[in-house]
Amino acid sequence: MSLDAVLSQIDSNLDAAAERLMQLLRIPSISTDPAFAENCQKAADWLVADLQSLGIRAEKRETPGHPMVTGHIDGPGPHLLFYGHYDVQPVDPLDLWDRDPFDPEVQDTSNGKVIRGRGASDDKGQLMTFVEACRAWKAVHGDLPCKLTFLFEGEEESGSPSLVPFMQENAAELKADMALICDTGLFESRVPSIVTMLRGLLGEEITITAADKDLHSGMYGGVSMNPIRVLTKILAGLHDDQGRITVPGFYDGVTELPDDIRSQWQGLAFDHARFLGDVDLSKPAGEQDRTPLEMIWSRPTCDVNGIWGGYTGDGFKTVLPSQAHAKVSFRLVGDQDPHKIRESFRKLVQDALPPDCEVSFIGHGAGTASVTETSSPMFEAARKALSEEWAIPAAYIGCGGSIPIAGHFQEILETTPMLIGFGKDDDQIHSPNEKYDMESFHKGIRSWARILAALS
Amino acid sequence: MSLDAVLSQIDSNLDAAAERLMQLLRIPSISTDPAFAENCQKAADWLVADLQSLGIRAEKRETPGHPMVTGHIDGPGPHLLFYGHYDVQPVDPLDLWDRDPFDPEVQDTSNGKVIRGRGASDDKGQLMTFVEACRAWKAVHGDLPCKLTFLFEGEEESGSPSLVPFMQENAAELKADMALICDTGLFESRVPSIVTMLRGLLGEEITITAADKDLHSGMYGGVSMNPIRVLTKILAGLHDDQGRITVPGFYDGVTELPDDIRSQWQGLAFDHARFLGDVDLSKPAGEQDRTPLEMIWSRPTCDVNGIWGGYTGDGFKTVLPSQAHAKVSFRLVGDQDPHKIRESFRKLVQDALPPDCEVSFIGHGAGTASVTETSSPMFEAARKALSEEWAIPAAYIGCGGSIPIAGHFQEILETTPMLIGFGKDDDQIHSPNEKYDMESFHKGIRSWARILAALS
Repeated sequence: MSLDAVLSQIDSNLDAAAERLMQLLRIPSISTDPAFAENCQKAADWLVADLQSLGIRAEKRETPGHPMVTGHIDGPGPHLLFYGHYDVQPVDPLDLWDRDPFDPEVQDTSNGKVIRGRGASDDKGQLMTFVEACRAWKAVHGDLPCKLTFLFEGEEESGSPSLVPFMQENAAELKADMALICDTGLFESRVPSIVTMLRGLLGEEITITAADKDLHSGMYGGVSMNPIRVLTKILAGLHDDQGRITVPGFYDGVTELPDDIRSQWQGLAFDHARFLGDVDLSKPAGEQDRTPLEMIWSRPTCDVNGIWGGYTGDGFKTVLPSQAHAKVSFRLVGDQDPHKIRESFRKLVQDALPPDCEVSFIGHGAGTASVTETSSPMFEAARKALSEEWAIPAAYIGCGGSIPIAGHFQEILETTPMLIGFGKDDDQIHSPNEKYDMESFHKGIRSWARILAALS
Repeated sequence: MSLDAVLSQIDSNLDAAAERLMQLLRIPSISTDPAFAENCQKAADWLVADLQSLGIRAEKRETPGHPMVTGHIDGPGPHLLFYGHYDVQPVDPLDLWDRDPFDPEVQDTSNGKVIRGRGASDDKGQLMTFVEACRAWKAVHGDLPCKLTFLFEGEEESGSPSLVPFMQENAAELKADMALICDTGLFESRVPSIVTMLRGLLGEEITITAADKDLHSGMYGGVSMNPIRVLTKILAGLHDDQGRITVPGFYDGVTELPDDIRSQWQGLAFDHARFLGDVDLSKPAGEQDRTPLEMIWSRPTCDVNGIWGGYTGDGFKTVLPSQAHAKVSFRLVGDQDPHKIRESFRKLVQDALPPDCEVSFIGHGAGTASVTETSSPMFEAARKALSEEWAIPAAYIGCGGSIPIAGHFQEILETTPMLIGFGKDDDQIHSPNEKYDMESFHKGIRSWARILAALS
């Protein structure tokens, strides 16, 4: 059978596939930091060349930000769109990395071989699982089993500012029967999964200014307002004693979980003690009356992702800073409206300012949550293919992260997204020493080969 | 008369004196940052050479930190010890400086000539007023009017860790009839003053750790504790709604101002609207039932001087950091015990930690407040000399800053400190664009010449 030959081809060429991934990992394509813009171009160029080597009509497409990569190839089956992103998170704190984040290597660990480096799991390794599946299919059969469109983005880690305009301008070109997105993980690092619920994301940066210059805390301490004091008071008030978020109207649009989903999730027997224990925590910190899986998949959050002000170097400096800053994000669920929440948050901050203080805001993206309709038989076909590869029944699950593109596929391209990925909980994405298990990479490639066969 | 000749000598050599100060200002002797240690050595060497050029037996004295400079010269009158510090504050944020902080220049401004550069006012410019007075005296008379000891420190801006041991080991050498300290300012930038009340300073650095690594706020947000949330809650609770500090036992040892001091301070007619207006503030932010002058001179404070955690670069990163940090300082008055307050503060932080969080502390110095006994007739003599130079009656005042050395002179050397300085409120010490008015420098030198004459 033709699928078996493709799987054998994948098995016997795994080292070469890993070496190709390394090439991509060596390009430091950090999208959020303008200093790395040229490397985003390089990563896009690398992908264009690699797709072209498979006979795919690939192009780099400029945007006001980092470029998109698109690719098209005809085939007999349904039209599938595959999405991944080639940009990566920043790498600080750099001193916590065991090696250069952009000098990847395959390492032997007690849990098997891993590919270590920034982007190994999020999302270059995942993106390449699909490309390698296509390469193997093409090597065996000379062509691909269905019509494929590729869309690789370079701004996913910085809020995807160019994605919606690009999709709108190129909707006719990109529209497909199903959109495959590879940027998620195995449930409990073990169970192959299709994500059908994703949280939205709203980012805000606030700067509070008191005096018009930094002051000496001896001369002015006590009599002049310290913006760090103002900022900490505002941030400390964003959660009540029960862990609920206090922004007025925040819970508008948050719906309770339907009973069938709730019981399905209970059936997953999520081991939250292990999940937290993996990062040296023990007690869920969110709303007191929710289970951990609910907290992560179906409840909204508010977190401070960064805070700074005053003197932060070695030693001590008795300064009263002029300004204090924070980056705050909200994970959204159901029908929460990010724009209304932004407005309400800004009003809360404004209203909390004491005399003499001013605030300025920078908005960092606003994406709604998304819930996918799974009625198409393609979902069951993909779930079966995944179950066969991993020898475990695959599950429909939620995801705490935000992949706004899932909503965009539905709204702009009228194409249902199917989110399948092979990351593990300990991949340390967004953290030092990110890795991708060789098992994830290998079985991920095989999974896509099976799914291509199943959907064709 | 011999004083007049010295004053003329000062007037006609002012440019050369300013040029010598520039040489010292060009040495970036930032004490708190280990990267600048060599420059602290250079500044000490420069001072040794300059004192030696006046016939003073000067030496650089190594310590576990930055070196001390001592100098001795005999003379007929009483034994006076002069103290200043050659180290300076860090210069960040560097982009707010109009020029290189260590490339000083004399600038013409609408308020007259100023010497612009880090340390111009705090404390190199002030230190040099005394040295230049000695130089002029020596040039006119061939010797000095009294026995002098010099003590220049290089760690004042980083908590003076080596000062107490050095004073203890060399007490016999340093003991004098009176200690002159030049590190304070003119009251209201106008009235020559002798500071008799100084606040103490306690510095603490806290690090809160939750998870053992940085996490992705999509995967863990809501379910795992964010150390920034813990930190902001603790810091926000350090003041109550009335601006009082909530650390248990904090106000033990804080005494109310005696009526005579209170009425003397009322007589100074402090213009707090102008004081705050100078830095674009309008409303005193401290305890609601205190006057601004009380807040600054005689009430204790708590301020966060630095805070950091998570992602603080350009753009946005949805990280849940493993750690969050703050530098907190307390200004102390009366008999407040810094060690007890440190202990109580640490307990408050410990007790406020939720499950899974840990805290570590770094102590950054602990100095008590000091109140000087002014019964010696030398105080009235100095006050009269200052009044004559500035043509305004000089005042005994308080100071919001902390000069722990004042207490050390009393306790270790049994030498009464007399704090006289010529800084102005707009000198921007510890801030970008620090300056020292040429008037402060010139009349400061002349003031010391008059005081030397008056005390001899």
